[in-house]
Amino acid sequence: MSVDEDTANHGRLLATVRGPQDVKRMSTEQLALLGAEIRDFLIAKVSRTGGHVGPNLGVVELTIAMHRVFDSPRDRLLFDTGHQAYVHKIITGRQAGFDQLRQRGGLSGYPSQAESEHDLIENSHASTALSYADGLAKAYALRGEQRSVVAVVGDGALTGGMCWEALNNIATAGNPLVIVVNDNGRSYAPTIGGLADHLSSLRLNPGYEKVLDTVKDALGSTPLVGKPMYEVLHAVKKGIKDAVAPQAMFEDLGIKYVGPVDGHDLEAVESALRSAKSFGGPVIVHAVTRKGYGYRPAEEDEADCLHGPGGAFDVETGQLLAASAVKWTHVFADELVAIADTRPDVVGITAAMAEPTGIAKLARKHPDRVYDVGIAEQHAATSAAGLALGGMHPVVAVYATFLNRAFDQVLLDVAMHKLPVTFVLDRAGITGPDGPSHYGIWDMSVFGAVPGLRIAAPRDAATLREELREAVAVDDGPTIVRFPTGAVAADLPAVRRVGPVDVLAESARTDVLLVAVGAFGQLGMEVAGRVAEQGYGVTVVDPRWVRPVPAELVELAAGHRLVVTVEDGVRVNGVGSALAQAMRDADVRVPLRDLGVPADWHPHGTRAQILADLGLTAQDVARDVTGWISGLDSRPVDPVRLSAPDAGAQT
Amino acid sequence: MSVDEDTANHGRLLATVRGPQDVKRMSTEQLALLGAEIRDFLIAKVSRTGGHVGPNLGVVELTIAMHRVFDSPRDRLLFDTGHQAYVHKIITGRQAGFDQLRQRGGLSGYPSQAESEHDLIENSHASTALSYADGLAKAYALRGEQRSVVAVVGDGALTGGMCWEALNNIATAGNPLVIVVNDNGRSYAPTIGGLADHLSSLRLNPGYEKVLDTVKDALGSTPLVGKPMYEVLHAVKKGIKDAVAPQAMFEDLGIKYVGPVDGHDLEAVESALRSAKSFGGPVIVHAVTRKGYGYRPAEEDEADCLHGPGGAFDVETGQLLAASAVKWTHVFADELVAIADTRPDVVGITAAMAEPTGIAKLARKHPDRVYDVGIAEQHAATSAAGLALGGMHPVVAVYATFLNRAFDQVLLDVAMHKLPVTFVLDRAGITGPDGPSHYGIWDMSVFGAVPGLRIAAPRDAATLREELREAVAVDDGPTIVRFPTGAVAADLPAVRRVGPVDVLAESARTDVLLVAVGAFGQLGMEVAGRVAEQGYGVTVVDPRWVRPVPAELVELAAGHRLVVTVEDGVRVNGVGSALAQAMRDADVRVPLRDLGVPADWHPHGTRAQILADLGLTAQDVARDVTGWISGLDSRPVDPVRLSAPDAGAQT
Repeated sequence: MSVDEDTANHGRLLATVRGPQDVKRMSTEQLALLGAEIRDFLIAKVSRTGGHVGPNLGVVELTIAMHRVFDSPRDRLLFDTGHQAYVHKIITGRQAGFDQLRQRGGLSGYPSQAESEHDLIENSHASTALSYADGLAKAYALRGEQRSVVAVVGDGALTGGMCWEALNNIATAGNPLVIVVNDNGRSYAPTIGGLADHLSSLRLNPGYEKVLDTVKDALGSTPLVGKPMYEVLHAVKKGIKDAVAPQAMFEDLGIKYVGPVDGHDLEAVESALRSAKSFGGPVIVHAVTRKGYGYRPAEEDEADCLHGPGGAFDVETGQLLAASAVKWTHVFADELVAIADTRPDVVGITAAMAEPTGIAKLARKHPDRVYDVGIAEQHAATSAAGLALGGMHPVVAVYATFLNRAFDQVLLDVAMHKLPVTFVLDRAGITGPDGPSHYGIWDMSVFGAVPGLRIAAPRDAATLREELREAVAVDDGPTIVRFPTGAVAADLPAVRRVGPVDVLAESARTDVLLVAVGAFGQLGMEVAGRVAEQGYGVTVVDPRWVRPVPAELVELAAGHRLVVTVEDGVRVNGVGSALAQAMRDADVRVPLRDLGVPADWHPHGTRAQILADLGLTAQDVARDVTGWISGLDSRPVDPVRLSAPDAGAQT
Repeated sequence: MSVDEDTANHGRLLATVRGPQDVKRMSTEQLALLGAEIRDFLIAKVSRTGGHVGPNLGVVELTIAMHRVFDSPRDRLLFDTGHQAYVHKIITGRQAGFDQLRQRGGLSGYPSQAESEHDLIENSHASTALSYADGLAKAYALRGEQRSVVAVVGDGALTGGMCWEALNNIATAGNPLVIVVNDNGRSYAPTIGGLADHLSSLRLNPGYEKVLDTVKDALGSTPLVGKPMYEVLHAVKKGIKDAVAPQAMFEDLGIKYVGPVDGHDLEAVESALRSAKSFGGPVIVHAVTRKGYGYRPAEEDEADCLHGPGGAFDVETGQLLAASAVKWTHVFADELVAIADTRPDVVGITAAMAEPTGIAKLARKHPDRVYDVGIAEQHAATSAAGLALGGMHPVVAVYATFLNRAFDQVLLDVAMHKLPVTFVLDRAGITGPDGPSHYGIWDMSVFGAVPGLRIAAPRDAATLREELREAVAVDDGPTIVRFPTGAVAADLPAVRRVGPVDVLAESARTDVLLVAVGAFGQLGMEVAGRVAEQGYGVTVVDPRWVRPVPAELVELAAGHRLVVTVEDGVRVNGVGSALAQAMRDADVRVPLRDLGVPADWHPHGTRAQILADLGLTAQDVARDVTGWISGLDSRPVDPVRLSAPDAGAQT
C-alpha cells in the first residue's frame, strides 16, 4: 500500500482528471491505474484530516463507472448518505480541496451545491435518495427533459422505511431511473463462506423456511447483526441466487433487477449501468462492493472497515494518531451496563449505531437485551413503546440529529401512552466536521413541546451518570438525556441543589441569574468570573432537567435583576424561550435574554470554531451579560404585577 | 338492510355478548347471526353519530375470529389505525357506549386504555402496529410470558415505511407474532375483474415484466391509484396467486405467509389464525375483506365505501343529513386548481388523502400533475424536494397532524436545500371527534424552528386564497399554509395592512395589541368589543404570516401597553412564545400574555366544546385580557431599556 509520498510521485494520471470528461476518455489500462491512484489519494489525504475512508474505498470503480456511463451534471447522480461521495468529488475537479476536508472553510464531507454543479443532496441522513430520485424523475418527465437520474443507496440504508415508500412510488410512476444498491454490508462476512456452500446444497429445496432458518442460525449469533435485508443481499453476493435472491422482491414491486455485479469489476459495472440506462423504466443495479477495498487496515477492521475515523490516522495501521480521551459516550456506555446489571427490565435499542453510541457495550454484556433495528428510527421509537407496554424500560441510543426522524412516534406512540422509554441523544448540540445536517441542535426545541416528556442535559460525567439513572427511574413517561460529542467535561460540583436545579456558583449580590444548560456549565463559571470583575454578582445554575421548566428555576429567576440563558441548541423554541414563558405564566417580570444557536444552517468546522463564530465563548457571553446588566437601571424590578385571572388556557 | 328499529327487535344475540368469552361459545349458526346483528348495530348507531362505518363493516368476521382464537387481554390484539376497532369494542362490552360515539365524554372512535383492558394502541396514525407488536413480542420473550401478539394492519397502511422497518425487525427477531393484513383496498376493484381473467392466462409466463406492465396499464389509468403493494395484494385477491403473489416478498423477508383467505368466511379466517397461532414464529395472515361489506350504500360508494362520515347519515342512502357548508378544504381545492391552470410548474402531492384534502379536484383537472404517494408522508416531503430540484413547485396537502411524520424531511431535505415546496395543512388546530392523536396543534410549534420555513395561518376564505397564492409565489424556501377543519369562517376584511400584518380593528387608545392567529380573527373582534366595553382600547391584528415573526408585529407591539396572543396550537413554542422572543431581541419591554392550547392530550368532542373547555372563547379571552390590562399600572411602560450589545448569537 502506498503512503502519501508515493502518491505524490505516482498520482500523475489522477492529476489529469479535472472533470468527468477526463475519465470518459481513458483506456481500460488507464482506468485500472486511476482506480489505484484514487485509493492512494484517499488514504493519503483522509489519514491526515479524518473522514469517511472505508465507504469511499468501496465505491471507487462504481463512481468511475457512473461518470463514464452518465453525463453529470445533465444527468443527476444522487448519493444517499453523502459520505460516500468523496470519489465523486475527486472526479469532479475537487482534488485540491482534500487537504482541508471537513475543516472550517474547506471541502465538505458531503455533497455541496456551493462546491459543485455536480452535487445535489446535502443532507447526510440516510434513505432519502430514492425519494429525491422519484421526484426528479417525475419533474423531468413532466417537463419533457431527457435526463437520467441515478441514485446510489447502501444496503444498510435500505432498512430505512423511506426506501420502501420510495420503491413503491418509483414502481408506480414507472419513470426511467437507476437505483444502484451499493451492497457493502459485511458484518457477518467472516461466517458466510461455509454457509454459502451449505446453502448451495439446499438450493433445490422448495421450503423457504428451512433455508432462512439456516441463514438465521448462522448469522444470528449476535443480536446486532442479521437484518433480513442484509441476509438476502449477502446470500446473493456469495452466489446463491436461486435460494434467497432479492429479484423476486424487487420485481414483485415492479422494478427491474440487474445483478448482482462485482462492484470492483469496472467493466461489469459499466455494462450493467449502460443496460439500466437504456431500459426505459426503473431499474435496480445490485453492485456488491467491499467497504475499505484495497486498504488492508480497513479490510481487516472487522467492526466497521475504518468507516469514518474522526481524525488523522496512521496509514500503516489505521489507528488514530491522537490519544483517545474519555468521551461522553464512554461514560454513558459504562453507566448503562451498570444500571442494566441490576435492572433486568432495562434493554437497549439503537439504529445502526451500536458502536458509535456505546450501546455495543451493553450488547456484549447482555446480548439478548440489545436490539439494533437498522437505520430505522421510527421503528426504534415505536418498538420501544411496545417493549415498554410489555413491562420493559428501553433505552434508545441515537445521535441527536437522528431522533428528529421519529418525532411523531415519540409524540404519539411513546408520550401519549405515557410509556417509560429513555432516549439517549449523543452528539447533541454543535458537533463539528459533519456540518449542518449532523448538528444536534433541534432536540430541546422540537421535543420540548411533547407533553410529559422530560429532557435532561448533563454538564459532566457525574451528572450524566446521575441523570441517566434518574431517567431510567421515571416510570410514567418518556425521558431524553442529551449530551455533546467529544471528550467529557471536567466534573463541576454543585454548591447546592434546589429541586432539580444545581446551583454552581453564588454571590452576595443577586444581579444576574445565569442559566447554563448542559455542557455550558463550565462556560457559565467562566462568565460569572468575568462579570464579577465588573462588580456584578452572578448566580450560575444548571437546571439539569430543562423540560418541562422546573418551578424552582422560575423562583430563582424572580430573585434576580436579569436572567440570561445559554444553551447548545437552537434559540427558537429553546430552553430560554420556555423559561421566559414559564416566567410570564408566573408573572415574574424580570428581563430575560436567551443565548443559543441561531436556527440556521451552520457550516462544518471544529465545535470550538463554530461556537466561537456564534459568539458562544465565555468572553463573548460575559461581554453580553455585562452590557445588559449595566444597562439596567439600578432600581429594583418594577413591583407592579399583572393580575392573574383564572385563565383556563394557562398550562 | 335493517334500520335501527329492527336492530332493537333482532339484536337479541348481540345483547348477550358482554365479553369475548360470550363469542367463544357460540355455534356456527349463532355466529352467522351475530355477524348480521353487529352489522345492523354498526349501521344503526354510526348513522346517528357519524364515524368510521365502512372499515368496520369490513372486519366483522375477522374481529369475531380473532376473539375466538385468541384470549384478549392476555393475548394482545393491536389495531393499526384504530378506527377499525369498533367491532372489537362491541365484543368487549362497550355496546352501550355507541350512542355517544366520538362525542364529548362518550366512547372514543379509537382504542382507549381508559375504556377497556382489551385496548392498547390509542394512536390513530397508520403503520405503527407492527412496530408495537415487535416490541411487545420481544418483551414477552424476555420475560418468558406465553402471550400471543396479533396486529391487524390494512393494505393501505403497508405503504408506510414504518411497516417495512418493522417487518425487517420482526423477521430478524423471529418471535411468535401474527400479522393480519386486512386487505380491503378497492380503489380499482371495478376494473380488475377482466384483468384477473387476462392475468390468469399469463400465469405460466415466467417474465414478470410483462405481467406487471399489464397490471400497470390496466390499473394506472389514474395517478391516484395503482400503488404496487395494492396491485400485488389485489391480484392475489382475485386468484392469480402464481403470477404476482406476495408470498415470495414476505418470505424473502423470512416471514411465513398464510393466505389469502376470504375475510368474510369466519371458519376460514379462524382456521388461518389458529394455524398462525401455533406456528411459533412470525406469520402473516392475508385476509381479503370488503370495506363496507353487507351495507349497500357503502359497497356502492366507489370513492371510499363510506369510510368515515363526519356526522349522522341516512341509513337508506348513506348521505349525510346535515346540509354541507362551504369548507376550508373546498376553498383551497378551488384556488389550487385556479393557480395550477396558469402555473404549469405547480403539482400536487398527497398521502392517501386525495379526497379529504381536496387535492382530488386538481387530479381531475390535471391528472398528470397529482401524486398520491400512499400513507407515506416522509416520501411525500422528499419526493417534493426532488420535484422542486427538477423545477416544479409542489403543493403537498395533508392533515396537520400527519406532517409531523415528516419533520426531518421538511427540515433537511426541503428547508436546508431552500426548496420551494408548499405544505397545505388541513384540519389544523383543535379538530374534534377524532381525539388527541388527530389534533393538528403541533405544526406552528414544531415547524416554527425550521430555518427559512414560512408559516401562514389564514383567517377566512379570502385570506386562504391570498396566502396560498403568496406561498406558491415563494421560490427560495418552503411554506406552510394551515387552516382548521369544518365550515370556513365568514370573510373579515382588514382595516389596513402593515407589512404582512392585517389590522382588523383599531381604537383611539392603544392599550392592548391582540394578536389573533388564523381562524381566531373573528374571536379577536368579539374580544375587542367586550374589552372596549370596559374602557380599554384594543388593536386586533392578524399576522397572516406567523413564522418567522414579522418585524412589523414587533413594532406594533412596542406601541401598546399589553400584548395578548391567541392561537389554535400548543402554547409551548407557539406563535406567542416566538413573538415574545422577537420582542426580547428587539428590546421591546411590553408585557405579553400568550393564550393557546395547552401542550397536553385533549379528549374528543366538538371543536367548540374543546375550545370552550380550554377557555378559548371570546368571553373567556375577554375576561383574561380585561383582568390583565386593568391590573397594569396606568403609568407608561418603563422607558429603561436593556442595552443591546453586539451579540453574535442574537438571531
